[in-house]
Amino acid sequence: MTQTEVPAEQRRSLLIKPQQVQTESVPVPVPGPDQVLIEIAAVGICGSDVHYFEHGRIGDFVVREPLVLGHEASGVIRGVGSAVTDRQVGQRVALEPQETCGHCTQCQAGRYNLCPDVQFYATPPVDGAFAEYVVLNAGRAHPIPDSLSDEAGALIEPLAVGVAANKKAAVEPGDRVLVTGAGPVGLLAAGVARARGGWVAVSDTNDYRLQVAADRGADAIIHAGAGSAREQQGEFDVILECSGAAPAVLGAFDAAAPAARVVLIGMGAASMELPVGLIQNRELWVTGVFRYANCYPAAIALAAEGAVDLDALVTARFGIDEVADALTALRRDPHTLKPVVYPSR
Amino acid sequence: MTQTEVPAEQRRSLLIKPQQVQTESVPVPVPGPDQVLIEIAAVGICGSDVHYFEHGRIGDFVVREPLVLGHEASGVIRGVGSAVTDRQVGQRVALEPQETCGHCTQCQAGRYNLCPDVQFYATPPVDGAFAEYVVLNAGRAHPIPDSLSDEAGALIEPLAVGVAANKKAAVEPGDRVLVTGAGPVGLLAAGVARARGGWVAVSDTNDYRLQVAADRGADAIIHAGAGSAREQQGEFDVILECSGAAPAVLGAFDAAAPAARVVLIGMGAASMELPVGLIQNRELWVTGVFRYANCYPAAIALAAEGAVDLDALVTARFGIDEVADALTALRRDPHTLKPVVYPSR
Amino acid sequence: MTQTEVPAEQRRSLLIKPQQVQTESVPVPVPGPDQVLIEIAAVGICGSDVHYFEHGRIGDFVVREPLVLGHEASGVIRGVGSAVTDRQVGQRVALEPQETCGHCTQCQAGRYNLCPDVQFYATPPVDGAFAEYVVLNAGRAHPIPDSLSDEAGALIEPLAVGVAANKKAAVEPGDRVLVTGAGPVGLLAAGVARARGGWVAVSDTNDYRLQVAADRGADAIIHAGAGSAREQQGEFDVILECSGAAPAVLGAFDAAAPAARVVLIGMGAASMELPVGLIQNRELWVTGVFRYANCYPAAIALAAEGAVDLDALVTARFGIDEVADALTALRRDPHTLKPVVYPSR
Amino acid sequence: MTQTEVPAEQRRSLLIKPQQVQTESVPVPVPGPDQVLIEIAAVGICGSDVHYFEHGRIGDFVVREPLVLGHEASGVIRGVGSAVTDRQVGQRVALEPQETCGHCTQCQAGRYNLCPDVQFYATPPVDGAFAEYVVLNAGRAHPIPDSLSDEAGALIEPLAVGVAANKKAAVEPGDRVLVTGAGPVGLLAAGVARARGGWVAVSDTNDYRLQVAADRGADAIIHAGAGSAREQQGEFDVILECSGAAPAVLGAFDAAAPAARVVLIGMGAASMELPVGLIQNRELWVTGVFRYANCYPAAIALAAEGAVDLDALVTARFGIDEVADALTALRRDPHTLKPVVYPSR
Repeated sequence: MTQTEVPAEQRRSLLIKPQQVQTESVPVPVPGPDQVLIEIAAVGICGSDVHYFEHGRIGDFVVREPLVLGHEASGVIRGVGSAVTDRQVGQRVALEPQETCGHCTQCQAGRYNLCPDVQFYATPPVDGAFAEYVVLNAGRAHPIPDSLSDEAGALIEPLAVGVAANKKAAVEPGDRVLVTGAGPVGLLAAGVARARGGWVAVSDTNDYRLQVAADRGADAIIHAGAGSAREQQGEFDVILECSGAAPAVLGAFDAAAPAARVVLIGMGAASMELPVGLIQNRELWVTGVFRYANCYPAAIALAAEGAVDLDALVTARFGIDEVADALTALRRDPHTLKPVVYPSR
Repeated sequence: MTQTEVPAEQRRSLLIKPQQVQTESVPVPVPGPDQVLIEIAAVGICGSDVHYFEHGRIGDFVVREPLVLGHEASGVIRGVGSAVTDRQVGQRVALEPQETCGHCTQCQAGRYNLCPDVQFYATPPVDGAFAEYVVLNAGRAHPIPDSLSDEAGALIEPLAVGVAANKKAAVEPGDRVLVTGAGPVGLLAAGVARARGGWVAVSDTNDYRLQVAADRGADAIIHAGAGSAREQQGEFDVILECSGAAPAVLGAFDAAAPAARVVLIGMGAASMELPVGLIQNRELWVTGVFRYANCYPAAIALAAEGAVDLDALVTARFGIDEVADALTALRRDPHTLKPVVYPSR
Repeated sequence: MTQTEVPAEQRRSLLIKPQQVQTESVPVPVPGPDQVLIEIAAVGICGSDVHYFEHGRIGDFVVREPLVLGHEASGVIRGVGSAVTDRQVGQRVALEPQETCGHCTQCQAGRYNLCPDVQFYATPPVDGAFAEYVVLNAGRAHPIPDSLSDEAGALIEPLAVGVAANKKAAVEPGDRVLVTGAGPVGLLAAGVARARGGWVAVSDTNDYRLQVAADRGADAIIHAGAGSAREQQGEFDVILECSGAAPAVLGAFDAAAPAARVVLIGMGAASMELPVGLIQNRELWVTGVFRYANCYPAAIALAAEGAVDLDALVTARFGIDEVADALTALRRDPHTLKPVVYPSR
Repeated sequence: MTQTEVPAEQRRSLLIKPQQVQTESVPVPVPGPDQVLIEIAAVGICGSDVHYFEHGRIGDFVVREPLVLGHEASGVIRGVGSAVTDRQVGQRVALEPQETCGHCTQCQAGRYNLCPDVQFYATPPVDGAFAEYVVLNAGRAHPIPDSLSDEAGALIEPLAVGVAANKKAAVEPGDRVLVTGAGPVGLLAAGVARARGGWVAVSDTNDYRLQVAADRGADAIIHAGAGSAREQQGEFDVILECSGAAPAVLGAFDAAAPAARVVLIGMGAASMELPVGLIQNRELWVTGVFRYANCYPAAIALAAEGAVDLDALVTARFGIDEVADALTALRRDPHTLKPVVYPSR
């Protein structure tokens, strides 16, 4: 292993039980032969982090042992494993926080996000990135240009979700795209849709978030309480459903044009009443995204060329000892979009 | 217009009100410039015919005026319109029973089945094929080889549904395909899936129909009452849902492998509780079929090469004055698969 | 037919023989039931117009009778046929200058540009748009917003070629795209690729055109004489070959990454030595574009949102009596990009 | 590592120099952690083996050190590496004879056959399967059912090429498919095309091979010397070019329908004059196959269900000491299709 001088000990933030985190010192991990050691620069707070913090579980995933949260991360490579040839100490990287088996049907087919043995950061029992140092498979540490800030590097992760959703929807120039839900993922999905040439309307119940969507260049905004999307803006070729809320989902189907592609991104109820007749009569294509595969390069390119502004999403900044504050920022301030934690500052 | 000698009057069967049909004499229609006049040879009974007969409506489609039912039809061209250059009097044809506008977005894109102005046989207020003569756009009258019987020519229509569903599912050799529901459409969809090289399991609650599926070459049959499809046969790359029944739909999703394609073919409830979480976590592709576009040539080819046996589906035969019997055959005999009416015999 | 007052006579420009055009007066045409009458506002000069003017033929297409050239046109609807319901007198439109049969396999499948009976403007014996008035199928007269100039409306046509090429190449954000040839089509194809999120390099032998490409936002420019594209910029996921020149074509294949998509747009030799071994070993996808189908809406959207600048391409302006000057502008001034003729001014 | 008793020494056949092979004894290899040890049962002779034997090279691949040829192989697992969990000693397998890096762009995208670091059997300097024992990555050792013979297991390899080509061509029921070249790969590609529902014509100059094609179920055969394929059988939706011969390639393009898919499978000249104008005017899709990725399961399924007959291709059988005879069988007997070597008998 090649590495610069790194300390023996590092600090990281652990979720002990619902609504309780604490910082502890542990040895800096040693990268395996195919891994790199990364000093974490910035970590965005995702809704799933908040949900684990508040409830100690998401569906079947239960936090049984203390867990390090955080999976939207950037950092600098500080060590490389013995078999790694294409990463160097000192490179700034965005972390694609998943390790996959590489040999199952899904991995071999290029859909490694569906690997049944996927290990994903901050999903029990796999630790995440609220730490000074982490290890990651070298291929999942994607170099970023100097023009991208640490925060932007961290937010490549949710941007990759938007890239994945748009790829599934095959958004084309001229497509009319409806994004339901103007949280960070919705805003980023909308940005990617525009960067692909789509005409994009964003709907939400929250006026502040709609204003942000408009400021970020949405071609139209739709106040969800003021009539259906179809009534307000007609029908759409593509729906990117980013809210997970049942009324939004139903409104999304209602607004779908014949042969529209509907991508369910927002996590909501495990089961939901859907308009099967519409799916049939309009021959809609309905799918979901489960994270992403092969999307980081495109996300980095879009951020680097300025097609999607990541920095502007950051609404609050915290140190490693303020993770609880970061995780409750949204609850405390409805104008919060993306809190960011800086473990190494 | 060129045509052989045809009578001035013809007989046809009208649905007067729910559960009442009667035969009447009317003038033989005159084909428009782009149409052909067809003497009908055989007409299969579809579940939608039965539903209109029993209830006088299907969802929003209400039979307000007397209506000619029947849309699975074959016949012989007896006259051609003045602008028709590629059809001749005497040709045996399978009728693709829809006329579309030709210039809307859907038509131009090759998805003419989604044309908002589609006129489909036996869907109020458009008359169908329980008649000695009908007119149809020449391009929708597809020549069939002499090796195909009149009945087979008629059943090209439901076979085209199976072709459409398989095309949407992009069934490939080696794919594991689950067909839920072993009625005529399910049996035909299964036949097409096998003709594409798929390994096909068919599930149903009806032992008789499962036996038919097995006799027709299904690679496995699944008794729907004896445990889930997944428990009995593992997971599937493709699901062709042909029952419309909620338990079957749920079982279909349960059995879907990651990235599986799920095609909803059977008509059931307009709205249904679906496992959205599964669609997301497994990144399933869900769609429906609304009839078909550009599927008749493939259906005729599959029937002509013997890949799918249509004649064996015919379980009862009726004259134009016995349409009521034909429409109630299934109710009277549970072993009924496909009753056929012969208007011109 | 509904129409505003139009004169009985109009002027149009005819190609009499190679290198000789003359203006004549003829009756204003009357639109058929499905057609509109359009007063032409602006017509761009295409390389094919120049080729017909210089040589009287393009391959097998020979100008045997006097022919009206010009197929990149915009105008205003002045009359609508009796069966037209969705166009109104007074609408400004971009002309998609092709009429197709509507019922052949290609038309039905959504590939109407491949209709064997296509009638395309300014392709012998079909007259084009160097005229005050023309008729066109209503569906091919695409309304444009007031924000688009007449010139931009005319240049929707070459932009649609760029849209078609990019659609075939399925350019995605992050794709590295090489455009070989910086003439009008290359510049527009490059613009569409960028509007889809691609990183775009443009190559040419002409420094002036490369400068224009750079000014229009190309991410890199490649002087074709200074080493291969691969040597200068590495390998590419997509190649849009817009020159038709053999060295550029070979350089394009050389620069193609494994699984790259190569679209041959520029018209050159009918037959050419191609690196079959590369196509095989890298599993390249190679195709061509023959005009476009279903591309005008996207082209209009891209122009309207400012993603591609059409007005800046216009380098010279001519009246109906100056068509010969327009057709020789490029020969006379190498900085010419797009001459435009205004028949009605 | 778990393994049954295997000998310490094995025999294998080495290509020493062009036209000279010799058998030698070497230690049985030890599988790595992710590998299995396979006792080879049968090995088919491929044209590339013959070419290396005759000329000592194929293009840039030069045999500089003694090389074990043979890459179409089946066998029985005799040992499994320490990290292997899904293979067992005693399983009969078809060998997919390539090892790939797993982390490059191509591997991650599911196109591992295009991995720049691919190690392929019998391609210098990687040894092949004319040996009693070989090691292979466990995931590349595909279990086969008992219904498949050892020979069929070996010929899964060329069948996988046919599967790959048909997948690229997306052959659908009703497609008219032309296979040019009736050698083993052409016959197998034709068989797969029929198993997907295509109507398949096979062309060749060799009457014997055409007779074999007919016996194996081709829908039509075309004597290449008796006029063009287009003249004899009209145009085709799909061309699977399996000869590599320039006249066949040109005839293939000539016979291509608009929007046809043309897959170049046969290895011929590195560079060839191609009809670029046709590719453009008909918007053909042209690609090649370089081996295969993710095709073995489908190939095994097709063989197991009897859709493609592999055993009937075997025309001669040889022991490990008769490899030279096997490699020259085709030269000596023009009716040779597929010689097979049995290293362990």
